[in-house]
Amino acid sequence: MAAIFEATCTAPVNIAVVKYWGKRDTSLILPTNSSLSVTLSQDQLHSKTSIRASADFSSDRLWLNGHEESIEKNKRLVACLRETRALRASLEAENASLPKLSGLKIHICSENNFPTAAGLASSASGYACLVYTLSKLFELPLNASDLSVVARQGSGSACRSLFGGFVAWEMGEKADGSDSRAVQIAPETHWPDLQAMICVVSDEKKGTSSTEGMQLTVKTSALLQHRIKEVVPKRMDDMIAAIHAKDFPKFAELTMQDSNQFHAVCLDTYPPIFYMNDISRAIIRIITEYNKDGVKAAYTFDAGPNAVIYAPKENMAEIYSILSHYFPGAAFDDSLDLVKENPQRVAAGLPQNFDARISPVFTQGAVKQILHTKADDGPRTLDSAQHGLLNAEGLPKRLA
Amino acid sequence: MAAIFEATCTAPVNIAVVKYWGKRDTSLILPTNSSLSVTLSQDQLHSKTSIRASADFSSDRLWLNGHEESIEKNKRLVACLRETRALRASLEAENASLPKLSGLKIHICSENNFPTAAGLASSASGYACLVYTLSKLFELPLNASDLSVVARQGSGSACRSLFGGFVAWEMGEKADGSDSRAVQIAPETHWPDLQAMICVVSDEKKGTSSTEGMQLTVKTSALLQHRIKEVVPKRMDDMIAAIHAKDFPKFAELTMQDSNQFHAVCLDTYPPIFYMNDISRAIIRIITEYNKDGVKAAYTFDAGPNAVIYAPKENMAEIYSILSHYFPGAAFDDSLDLVKENPQRVAAGLPQNFDARISPVFTQGAVKQILHTKADDGPRTLDSAQHGLLNAEGLPKRLA
Repeated sequence: MAAIFEATCTAPVNIAVVKYWGKRDTSLILPTNSSLSVTLSQDQLHSKTSIRASADFSSDRLWLNGHEESIEKNKRLVACLRETRALRASLEAENASLPKLSGLKIHICSENNFPTAAGLASSASGYACLVYTLSKLFELPLNASDLSVVARQGSGSACRSLFGGFVAWEMGEKADGSDSRAVQIAPETHWPDLQAMICVVSDEKKGTSSTEGMQLTVKTSALLQHRIKEVVPKRMDDMIAAIHAKDFPKFAELTMQDSNQFHAVCLDTYPPIFYMNDISRAIIRIITEYNKDGVKAAYTFDAGPNAVIYAPKENMAEIYSILSHYFPGAAFDDSLDLVKENPQRVAAGLPQNFDARISPVFTQGAVKQILHTKADDGPRTLDSAQHGLLNAEGLPKRLA
Repeated sequence: MAAIFEATCTAPVNIAVVKYWGKRDTSLILPTNSSLSVTLSQDQLHSKTSIRASADFSSDRLWLNGHEESIEKNKRLVACLRETRALRASLEAENASLPKLSGLKIHICSENNFPTAAGLASSASGYACLVYTLSKLFELPLNASDLSVVARQGSGSACRSLFGGFVAWEMGEKADGSDSRAVQIAPETHWPDLQAMICVVSDEKKGTSSTEGMQLTVKTSALLQHRIKEVVPKRMDDMIAAIHAKDFPKFAELTMQDSNQFHAVCLDTYPPIFYMNDISRAIIRIITEYNKDGVKAAYTFDAGPNAVIYAPKENMAEIYSILSHYFPGAAFDDSLDLVKENPQRVAAGLPQNFDARISPVFTQGAVKQILHTKADDGPRTLDSAQHGLLNAEGLPKRLA
C-alpha cells in the first residue's frame, strides 16, 4: 500500500466592518477598494477540510458537505490547486528528498458546521480552509499573507479568513495581484471582550449573488466611484485607529456607516439590488434606539438579510434580551454561557427608557436563529488520524 | 354689510422624477440641487382653497380639512401671507382706486380631496393652492414662476405645483432665493399620453419627516455631496432632453435611477432613513421584470412607501393587471375608464413570458388603493359663488 499524505484543518468565518464590493479584475479577484474584517470564533462557525494525496487515487475529487462536486467546472478552485501544486513542485525540484506530492492526485473533503442556507460567508471560510490545508499537505513555506493571495483567487473575502482578530485586505495596485493581500491589524488577544451576535433572518426572496451584484454596481452606480475614491481610504485609516485604540463607539459608528453605505450603493445600482428586508431594517432601528444615549452596539449586514451585531461582552445579555423581545422564537446557541451567566438580565427584557414603539414585535421565527460568538483566532491544524473527514479508502466518512 | 372679496382655486399634486432632497437655506427653503416633476391631474387629486377678505373679520383664521388651525404657529404660512399682502399693499399705493384688501383680515379654508394619510404630497398642492388663491384674491400681476418663489417658502416642492405638465425647480444661486423658482419645461399637451398609477402601500412604521430627514442627510451623507455636484446637474439636462423628445425609455430610466439614488442617500444617512418597505421593493422587482424586454414603465418613490408608476397610456391596462395579481384587494378608482375600456386585458392577468416568481403574491390590502391619473394642467380658478368652501358668515360650509 502506498504512503498516505493528509492534512486536516479548520478555518473561520470573517465579517467585514469595511465592506468589499466591486472588482477591478474579475479573474484574479482584485477589488476596487480595501476592506477590513473581524474573524469570528471557529468554536461556533467554521469550515473543516481534509485533503489526502495518494498514488492510489486515479483523479482529483471533491466532496462539499457530503456531496461530490466537479473540480474542473470550478475555475476558482482549479486556480488554487494549480498555484499550490506549482509551489510544491518547485520545492521538490530544489530538494530531491521530498516526496513527489505535486504529481499525486488528491481527494478533498470539506464541511461547514453551519447551514450554507443561513447565508453566512461560507465561501470565505471554505476557500481559506482549502488553501490553508493544501499548504499544510504540501508543507509550503508561506506565511498567512502569502497564502491569502492564493485564497483571494478562490473567493475575495476568503483572504481575510487566513488570520485571526482584525484583518485588512489591502486592495493593492499591481496588475498581477501580488500586492492584493490580507494583513493582520491586530490579533484577537488585542481586544478580547469584542463579541458578536448573528441574527439569521428568514427571507422568502433569494437575493442577487454577490459576484453578479458587485459588478452590476461597478457598471451602473455613480455613487460607488465616490465611495471607492473618497470614502473608503479615510474610513480604513479611521477604522484601524479605532481598533488599535479599542475605541468601541468609534469602531461601531464606522461599522454601521459602512454597512449603510454598502447597501446604499446596492440601491444606487440599476436595476437596484436589495439585501436587507423589513426585518433587517427593524434590527437597525432597534440598535439605533439602543444606542441613543451612547453607542453600545454596532450592526452590519453583508449580501443578505442577516444581521451581525458587534458589541463588548458586557452588553451582550442586554442585547440578547432586546432581540428576544422583538423576535420571539429564535433558536439560541448558548455555547458561550450568555444566558447561563446572566439569567436575570436576559429575563428582564427591554432596558429602562427604551422606546418599545420603534418596531412592532415580529411573528415567531422572523429571526430563525441567534448565534453568540466572539473575535477569535485564524485557521487551525488538526490531527487527521483523529479528526480527518476521509476514511481508509480516501472517501468521505459522511455522505449527505 | 361690508363688501366681500373672495377667491376659490384648486392646485395639483406633483411627483418628482428628479428628486429634491436637501436644503442649503432652511428658512427660505433653498435646495441643494435642482429638481423636476410631472404635474398630476386635479381631476383625481387636488387641494382646494377659498380665501375671503372682509372688514367683518376680526382676525386671520385658517381651516384645514375642516379643522381650525393656528396661523401664527405656522411660520411658513405666515411668510406666504406677509409676502402676498405686501405686494397687494404696493399695488394699492400705486392705484388709489383699488380696494384696500391688504388691510383686511382673511379667512382661509382649504381641503384635499385625498386622505393626507395616503402619504401623497399634500403640502405641495396645499401651499401652491394657498399662494395661487391669494394671488387671485389680491389680483397680483405675477406669473406662475414669480408665484413659485412665494410658494417655495411654504413648502419647497409646492413651487412645482404652480405649473401643469413638466416642471423644473431651478435651485438658483442667490442668497435671497429670488432665482430659486419653478419653470415649465413643457406643457401637459406636449406629451398627452403620459399617465401615472399610484399605489398606496400600507405601512405600520411611520417614517422620518422629510423636513428632518433631508437635513440629517445633508449633515451625514458623504454620497449626497457627490449626487448634488456630479450626478443631478447632468441628470437634469438628460431628463429635459428626454421630455422634449418624448423618449419614454430614457425618461423612465432616469426616473427610476433618480428614485433609487434618492433612497440610497437616505440609507447612507446616519442613522439611516428608510422610506421603502418590502412591498415597495416588490413593486420595483415587478416593474424591473416587466421592463426586461424594453422599458415600458417607470417607478418612483417619494419620502414614503407609496409607488408612483409612470407609463404611456397604452401600457396602463397591462400594468394594472400585473399589480392586481400581486396585490389583491386594492381599491381602484376607474375615473379614467381604464378597466371599462380594457376589460379583457385587465382580466388576462400577467403578460406572456412574465416570470411570476420575482415576488410572492401579497396578502389582501398590502396595497390599499390604486389610483389611475395622468399628466395635466396647473392651478385652476373656480367661481366662489358656486364652488366656494365658505358660507355667508365666512365660516367653513363643512367642518370635520
